[in-house]
Amino acid sequence: MSTVEFKNPVYVRSWAVCAGKKEGEGPLGDRFDVVCPDGRCGEKSWEKAEMKMVTTAWKTALQKAGMSPGDVGCALGGDLLNQCVSTSFGFRDSHIPFLGLYGACSTMAEGLLLGSSLVAGGIQDHVLCTASSHFCSAERQYRYPLAYGGQRPPTAQWTATACGAVVLSSGKSGIRVTRAKIGSIYDPGVTDASNMGAAMAQSAYETLSAYFRETGDAPADYDLIVTGDLASVGKQLVVDLFDADGVDMRPVYDDCGLMLFHSGQDVHAGASGCGCSAAVLGGYLLPALDKKLFRRVLFCGTGALLSPLTTSQGESIPGICHLVCLEAEA
Amino acid sequence: MSTVEFKNPVYVRSWAVCAGKKEGEGPLGDRFDVVCPDGRCGEKSWEKAEMKMVTTAWKTALQKAGMSPGDVGCALGGDLLNQCVSTSFGFRDSHIPFLGLYGACSTMAEGLLLGSSLVAGGIQDHVLCTASSHFCSAERQYRYPLAYGGQRPPTAQWTATACGAVVLSSGKSGIRVTRAKIGSIYDPGVTDASNMGAAMAQSAYETLSAYFRETGDAPADYDLIVTGDLASVGKQLVVDLFDADGVDMRPVYDDCGLMLFHSGQDVHAGASGCGCSAAVLGGYLLPALDKKLFRRVLFCGTGALLSPLTTSQGESIPGICHLVCLEAEA
Repeated sequence: MSTVEFKNPVYVRSWAVCAGKKEGEGPLGDRFDVVCPDGRCGEKSWEKAEMKMVTTAWKTALQKAGMSPGDVGCALGGDLLNQCVSTSFGFRDSHIPFLGLYGACSTMAEGLLLGSSLVAGGIQDHVLCTASSHFCSAERQYRYPLAYGGQRPPTAQWTATACGAVVLSSGKSGIRVTRAKIGSIYDPGVTDASNMGAAMAQSAYETLSAYFRETGDAPADYDLIVTGDLASVGKQLVVDLFDADGVDMRPVYDDCGLMLFHSGQDVHAGASGCGCSAAVLGGYLLPALDKKLFRRVLFCGTGALLSPLTTSQGESIPGICHLVCLEAEA
Repeated sequence: MSTVEFKNPVYVRSWAVCAGKKEGEGPLGDRFDVVCPDGRCGEKSWEKAEMKMVTTAWKTALQKAGMSPGDVGCALGGDLLNQCVSTSFGFRDSHIPFLGLYGACSTMAEGLLLGSSLVAGGIQDHVLCTASSHFCSAERQYRYPLAYGGQRPPTAQWTATACGAVVLSSGKSGIRVTRAKIGSIYDPGVTDASNMGAAMAQSAYETLSAYFRETGDAPADYDLIVTGDLASVGKQLVVDLFDADGVDMRPVYDDCGLMLFHSGQDVHAGASGCGCSAAVLGGYLLPALDKKLFRRVLFCGTGALLSPLTTSQGESIPGICHLVCLEAEA
């Protein structure tokens, strides 16, 4: 079976979220450690603002853990910008050994599962994971200049302006990472880059259903199963795909893309971006596990592995979904 | 100490290189498994050609290992294209659990060290690592349309058209991965994106000198130490930096950027791109270790973590260097 059970314990030692103004006005706004007053965060460009958010998030997470950069064996992180520059520049002056990831919106789950593997495997004692995105830097890279005011279809998602950071550790804490499953790529043939939830839904279904098959668990064994970020279109597809198997996901299933903003915040199908699931993880899931409001949570990061160039060359959109199981310590 | 010693053994089970025409005409040309007759590899675009090279490389490596995709626990890979699409599309139909990396030209070393960590940590038994680049897809993304015929300064490097794939395994073979060191980011302030060797040289020096300090080893303990890819400018800087410490690197030190092409192949300072060090690894280092021509080799992947956007916003170029120690089994 390809689900990994971490025999040596891995714990979540601390976490932090640095978010944008609109995210700060959402339902999780008061749970974020830092909320920037605007999209610039005092910087000259949106990209520099995103880099600053990355630095703010990892520094805050380390501070909450009572750790300094020298205490961390390595950092694993990524983002949506070409060449993942918000992350590498966000760690440029840290001197923390750094491993860059690219998993699109699945990055936080990819970091958690790789970081947990390093800790459980005895390779590192403490690992830092980050994932970030920024609405303005992503829009102009992937779609149109913001000033152009392009109309967005109802299936489009709103890239979150946020960076989440998590410190994983071999030392005991209130939350344990118990299992992980690395996803494979699935491409159901969707070619509409404004409907990425539909492109990623199959990968979420494939990873989750293989996980249930391999572990013998059922959805009811979890307090909450979240994907991130499929938003309204993709979430319904996952429910439908499981329905066809006779499995009702509704009682325990939600999607990070529907948890970051209020319904009135005009984000069309919901939120997206590496920062979305990272912010929901740090602003909602981890605090609830820490307070023992949840006992077991599946955090399933979904990513659309396209680029504007593959779309312009007529390619469809491959999706991926990595799963991490988080449990409150008894 | 942050150098990782792999206590549980990790072996290189097989490898393969798929390279372009110009690389096939270089000194390692007859060692490559597949050489494409032109930059298109029968595809409609350079990007699709690069995706095909990725698929060809990993399929050939698995075939040489006598393995099928279902035998591999996961694949770790990356490339230079925005959103690392040559790798994700190269694995799109594989159904192999996939983890995307971004380490610029350090990607093969990053994959080897993470893959070795997963094997040594008991998380996976068999891991596939890939890294690719393509001269034409990289030029038009990073610099100018090829048809423009822009002049290249003497410090510029030529992006290799190549993909390397390596299968790591817990089962014994002739080559063992014994140690690794994750690099930190160093930025000496170089702002000329046509002189990336200079930008990356410090990171190579920092990783190597920390490795020697932590392990007590000296350059003479190795048959060969390679960086990749600093080319002529960066290689000389590494020699000079070690000279200042009273350490003579010359007898055992070379750079992949100077090993892929003949001096008459008009590549200015030398080769670069994720595919360069991957091709030198698979076309020279691993075969020599397998034949016991080398006993111990340090493979140091160097990456420049810039993007065209960071350069246009006036940022300097951060560099990184990850180290992997490869040893012939007695």
